[in-house]
Amino acid sequence: MSTLGEIGEHETIKRILPMLGTHADLAVGPGDDCAVCRMAGTGNDQVFTTDPIIEGVHFQSLEKPERVGNKAVGRVLSDIAAMGAQPQWILVNVVAPPELDFQYLEKIYQGMNALCATFGAIIIGGDVAKGPVLELHVFGTGLQPAGTALLRSGGEIGDSVLVTGPLGNSLASGHHLDFVPRVEEGIFLRETGLVHSMMDLSDGLATDLRHILKQSGVGATLKSSAIPRLGTVEQALFDGEDFELLLTASPENTVKLQQDWGTRFGSELPVIGTLTSARGELEVDGRELASKAFEHFSS
Amino acid sequence: MSTLGEIGEHETIKRILPMLGTHADLAVGPGDDCAVCRMAGTGNDQVFTTDPIIEGVHFQSLEKPERVGNKAVGRVLSDIAAMGAQPQWILVNVVAPPELDFQYLEKIYQGMNALCATFGAIIIGGDVAKGPVLELHVFGTGLQPAGTALLRSGGEIGDSVLVTGPLGNSLASGHHLDFVPRVEEGIFLRETGLVHSMMDLSDGLATDLRHILKQSGVGATLKSSAIPRLGTVEQALFDGEDFELLLTASPENTVKLQQDWGTRFGSELPVIGTLTSARGELEVDGRELASKAFEHFSS
Repeated sequence: MSTLGEIGEHETIKRILPMLGTHADLAVGPGDDCAVCRMAGTGNDQVFTTDPIIEGVHFQSLEKPERVGNKAVGRVLSDIAAMGAQPQWILVNVVAPPELDFQYLEKIYQGMNALCATFGAIIIGGDVAKGPVLELHVFGTGLQPAGTALLRSGGEIGDSVLVTGPLGNSLASGHHLDFVPRVEEGIFLRETGLVHSMMDLSDGLATDLRHILKQSGVGATLKSSAIPRLGTVEQALFDGEDFELLLTASPENTVKLQQDWGTRFGSELPVIGTLTSARGELEVDGRELASKAFEHFSS
Repeated sequence: MSTLGEIGEHETIKRILPMLGTHADLAVGPGDDCAVCRMAGTGNDQVFTTDPIIEGVHFQSLEKPERVGNKAVGRVLSDIAAMGAQPQWILVNVVAPPELDFQYLEKIYQGMNALCATFGAIIIGGDVAKGPVLELHVFGTGLQPAGTALLRSGGEIGDSVLVTGPLGNSLASGHHLDFVPRVEEGIFLRETGLVHSMMDLSDGLATDLRHILKQSGVGATLKSSAIPRLGTVEQALFDGEDFELLLTASPENTVKLQQDWGTRFGSELPVIGTLTSARGELEVDGRELASKAFEHFSS
């Protein structure tokens, strides 16, 4: 017998995954930003994801409701963006204590609706239930041409590692509530045909990049001075909740990708490192970064 | 200012609905058992629904985990069945206290997987988060030929009102945990082409039938002796959590529908009443049943 608290959230998910089945139309199962399902006869794939946000964990009780709504839907749109898909349908389960003011909930919906509208998504259903703390469970789907989903498993040795924006300090700055998910950027990057692997940054660069390393069977070396950041190097590596896209591309395509990005968005798409053959190993400035080693890391 | 507790769950949902937008491919928005979306080029519609179950509200803390899993997925499959759709993809968000034993969660997944497998559905994603009580938020999709979804709004004056199985006493008997959603029955009923309106029974016949009355612009008169039941008439009308299908069909097609049903399932499909022109009025044995009037009703 062991409790969820003892084995941790990561291990809990790891143990559940093998219990789930397979299906002929399920192209990518759990373990990427979204599941990817074939839609026979359409030439499209449909992607699926869901994310909870919970009061006291993902936002504080006195937070502005429009921002809570933005974050709740933004996390899901960020997962959809990480596949390169166009967001489509959204459903929302609300759990709320009876003493919550209705106007607060109304403003959460205003925040969710506003972000959905920006990216062509729409809330089509959901439910409301009573519970001890406020929670929003957002479920979303997206569409993209069949076989084009950008996966964590597509990285190749020698690939450049790139990131779409500055990292770190997201919780303190409020960026984790106000962020705009990189939907347009994800679709653009997928359409270039130059990206090998992609994911969104929610748990911090050091943690998230390891998913690409593991699923692609590669290592990586990063140059700390190249990482665009809004705080210290440690914050850029470990804070999380950045909701930028992390991607890899072959070195020969990198300059073209950066130029096309600059033309489209008028901003930089910096290279922060390279994928290596040292399977599973993550180096920063030539020094190995131990897993979950925030307290041991110093720049 | 008014709290959710003051205005109630029903009114909360009623106030949220007008805030949600529209979309060219959204054939049926929130307010039916599922939302219905067109899938261009496929000849199919895709239906979407979500349901939470919360410890202490929808199940008790010491309940067998396989049964909790069955209920969590069963409620969603019942909504999909109520449209006449084939279940497809399922995603599950788990909220759990850290002290929960992993084996308990494992058995919940066994219960969910078993029910999914029975009906050709599969869990393709989800998330796990910490919270004060155990919650399962299940999202599901289904498929059916375009334009065939059986809605609450399709009832016509003179229609027979039918129900697929006995009602009442579901909480006390444990049926609310063990039930088998009427997926095969829903698909069969849709394929007959004889059903005007359909929904699943989750809040109790008296409450749920009013949705058909309101959305179809009709009334209904029921004969209490005709209602198949597992307890008293009051229980059949008000208990809820039956997860049978409630449907209406024209009087001239009713006998054929009942015969075809008997051939297919070897059981009865009883007529329990008739839709009337008395818009919004629900009569039982010739006596009007006030809304939410359990305490005022006597047989």
